[in-house]
Amino acid sequence: MNSTIQKQLSHRSIRAFKDTPISQEIIDTLVEVARHTATSSFSQSATLISVTDAKLKDDIARVCKQPYVAQASHLFIVVLDMYRNHAIATEANTDTEVLGSTDRFLGAAMDCGLMAQNIVTAAESLGLGTVYLGSIQNDAQTMIDLLKLPEYTFPLLGIAIGEPDQEPQLKPKLPEAFMHFENSYTTFENYHEALKDYDAIVTTYYDLRDSNTRVDSFTNQMTARMNVKGPNRMKNLEVLNRQKLLKY
Amino acid sequence: MNSTIQKQLSHRSIRAFKDTPISQEIIDTLVEVARHTATSSFSQSATLISVTDAKLKDDIARVCKQPYVAQASHLFIVVLDMYRNHAIATEANTDTEVLGSTDRFLGAAMDCGLMAQNIVTAAESLGLGTVYLGSIQNDAQTMIDLLKLPEYTFPLLGIAIGEPDQEPQLKPKLPEAFMHFENSYTTFENYHEALKDYDAIVTTYYDLRDSNTRVDSFTNQMTARMNVKGPNRMKNLEVLNRQKLLKY
Repeated sequence: MNSTIQKQLSHRSIRAFKDTPISQEIIDTLVEVARHTATSSFSQSATLISVTDAKLKDDIARVCKQPYVAQASHLFIVVLDMYRNHAIATEANTDTEVLGSTDRFLGAAMDCGLMAQNIVTAAESLGLGTVYLGSIQNDAQTMIDLLKLPEYTFPLLGIAIGEPDQEPQLKPKLPEAFMHFENSYTTFENYHEALKDYDAIVTTYYDLRDSNTRVDSFTNQMTARMNVKGPNRMKNLEVLNRQKLLKY
Repeated sequence: MNSTIQKQLSHRSIRAFKDTPISQEIIDTLVEVARHTATSSFSQSATLISVTDAKLKDDIARVCKQPYVAQASHLFIVVLDMYRNHAIATEANTDTEVLGSTDRFLGAAMDCGLMAQNIVTAAESLGLGTVYLGSIQNDAQTMIDLLKLPEYTFPLLGIAIGEPDQEPQLKPKLPEAFMHFENSYTTFENYHEALKDYDAIVTTYYDLRDSNTRVDSFTNQMTARMNVKGPNRMKNLEVLNRQKLLKY
């Protein structure tokens, strides 16, 4: 096993960072890695915004409802970006209606996911800690306003990076039998029964987010989450449509 | 610069593979890496299907319209998967309507993107070549039928892996000035003008896909793509809705 894979297998989210700044050289390297990420049909539909303004960082931490966001040494926002290609085609008098399709949205969203993981892998290879911030979606419209995002763009994911100031346990993930199949999808007759051992493992795991207390079983967590419906989050499609995305 | 980052910076898609099989040990390692990928709210909404059946591989290569898909030593399909959590909650008599929201879809799509890039990074660290297959979306419904995917799932991305049998040039990506901003989004007054130098670089690049001929400029490619509307691709939202996804 090489060092790349070793790091990938020991990934954990870091939510407490030391005060140490990250050098500009390292930021440049992370952006270079991002820039070299694969992209759907060459469309290059992912854009990064580095949040360096302290007030803006605080505002974003408030959207995330996570104070550690403001404490990270570096904060990237990964933006799904079809504005650039919209502008290019419009300058060439070409209709860009297709950018509102689900097809193009999926390609652009994948660009963002691939780029995000590439950044995290590079940062971790340098000994830094990272955490993904899906929580920027608690209020996507506010994120759009804060970052002055034009139409055909949408803030998908934040990445907070810094020197780790905690050593969380490895979070136990689903056994392979539940997430890797051969040739066709495999369903289970009774998931609670099939996941009994995994549920037991999860309940013995301590999540540092929740003040060092044990967490609930996986099946209980997934069931409880069905009733978690952030009011802004439930309006994400409206926000996307206003951005002229995901219209059909 | 460490070896992880070196590999990330030299990523290129490989579309010609040697006949060499990939050992089961390596496949197991790639799945382990996938399994350890970060996930939105612990939902673990990405599932892998390894396509080992020759006939099925041929069928998928036909969907992709890419014969090299059938020649890859290994083929993964990354499936957006909320079926598992739907089943878990349903067994607990809990309504799962929220899984049809755009919010949950975005989280699950990110899970898939992160997992896909983690697999590719691991494979490349082992000297293997990879190519993403967004082309499975040429006919998502057929992919669903072929892989027997249940409701609440959707095939997002293929990954073909094998020993490289070609050495493509590094594809020139957008300069940082166009894909990395500080604190807010930066628009350009005239993209054709601003991208002149990049356009010149792209036109001197040879894409091995296109029988060793030079490719068109970036701005021309992006403009031309506005009129590329695969009939099945334009129906992706209908397929997703039938899968009970992305409904609101």
